[in-house]
Amino acid sequence: MIKIAVLGGTGKEGSGLALRWAAAGYDVTLGSRELEKAQRAAAELNAALGKDMTRGTTNRDAAAQADIIVMTVPYAAHAATAESVKDVVQGKVFVDVTVPLDPANVRRVKMPPAGSAAMEAQQLLGEAVRVVAAFQNISAEHLKSLDHEIECDVLVCGNDKDAKQQVIELARAARMTAWDAGPIENAMVVEGLTSVLINLNIKHKVKAAGLRITGFLRP
Amino acid sequence: MIKIAVLGGTGKEGSGLALRWAAAGYDVTLGSRELEKAQRAAAELNAALGKDMTRGTTNRDAAAQADIIVMTVPYAAHAATAESVKDVVQGKVFVDVTVPLDPANVRRVKMPPAGSAAMEAQQLLGEAVRVVAAFQNISAEHLKSLDHEIECDVLVCGNDKDAKQQVIELARAARMTAWDAGPIENAMVVEGLTSVLINLNIKHKVKAAGLRITGFLRP
Repeated sequence: MIKIAVLGGTGKEGSGLALRWAAAGYDVTLGSRELEKAQRAAAELNAALGKDMTRGTTNRDAAAQADIIVMTVPYAAHAATAESVKDVVQGKVFVDVTVPLDPANVRRVKMPPAGSAAMEAQQLLGEAVRVVAAFQNISAEHLKSLDHEIECDVLVCGNDKDAKQQVIELARAARMTAWDAGPIENAMVVEGLTSVLINLNIKHKVKAAGLRITGFLRP
Repeated sequence: MIKIAVLGGTGKEGSGLALRWAAAGYDVTLGSRELEKAQRAAAELNAALGKDMTRGTTNRDAAAQADIIVMTVPYAAHAATAESVKDVVQGKVFVDVTVPLDPANVRRVKMPPAGSAAMEAQQLLGEAVRVVAAFQNISAEHLKSLDHEIECDVLVCGNDKDAKQQVIELARAARMTAWDAGPIENAMVVEGLTSVLINLNIKHKVKAAGLRITGFLRP
């Protein structure tokens, strides 16, 4: 069974993804900087699932024992979290969900010098790590309830085709539609789209603006 | 009546937009670097409309007599075209439809040093020009037939709210749904999305991948 570690798994986005993957039968571990926080979040998730399906540990321990590592941390913790697991994620699929929101204006796109959070992760972790950018546009609002149909597609960027395909499968398992959005350079578009969606949320007083790809029969 | 100039109006995207605006009753002039090419394109459009509704002239003359200027040129002609009309578009609404596609790989996002084509236009034209980025994601395939329903939304970026509202109205007149996608810094996301859509077109062998905003009742 594929083992997934969700770093920053105590946050809304991470625990929402973990909930859906655990429900789909994946072996999911929640990571946090603090062991106890991770254990508490896992206990909550298990209560929601009605079964002991997840566990919590440190980000580093979670990453070390997983096949696929999913990082869902605020941008302020992005570089430090990636650095903290660098040696235990070599050769693995590393899914970066981070959006580099500008604290001065979350509605305005501002990418880091590397070009995007995902490009920055690739630089920090090295070329042997199979970095994939995905899930940045999925509002945590969508994830928290298992029976809610997610009206937002997942755009998946990266340079490793097989790794992208694994992430597209993960999205399907969480009952989302995912698309190959091209090489890792395209992650800036997908990360930046989150600022565009936040702008729509604020302007139209809604909670979970999203987007769907159109133009052909849905897979 | 609002006068629209479509610079690069002999191309597929420009003539498609012109067709829809002329049909909606706007006064539309097609611009081109070459007068005769513009006149020929206008004659074709009038034949399609069944009525003499548009005319063709040089980009500069078209821009000089218009209220709203819409630039639809390949990125290679972007800076030169903007420069060529700079003095006659001051104070006006200038809609940049340009996508800075990378000739080495049109599926990979690569923004110019200014951040995006629209940011570059704003820098070239000066702060008095009300630059709005829009329509970059609408495949010309959608535009050429008046009775085709366009299954792709328009994301509108810019720093002038009134100018953005005018462009949202133009999109509606052409029977598209448009959204305020935030300040001009966000144009890089919308321009880059075109590379993501081209990637999907190539990968899935379709002609007009697009996107729809979701998450609330459509306006």
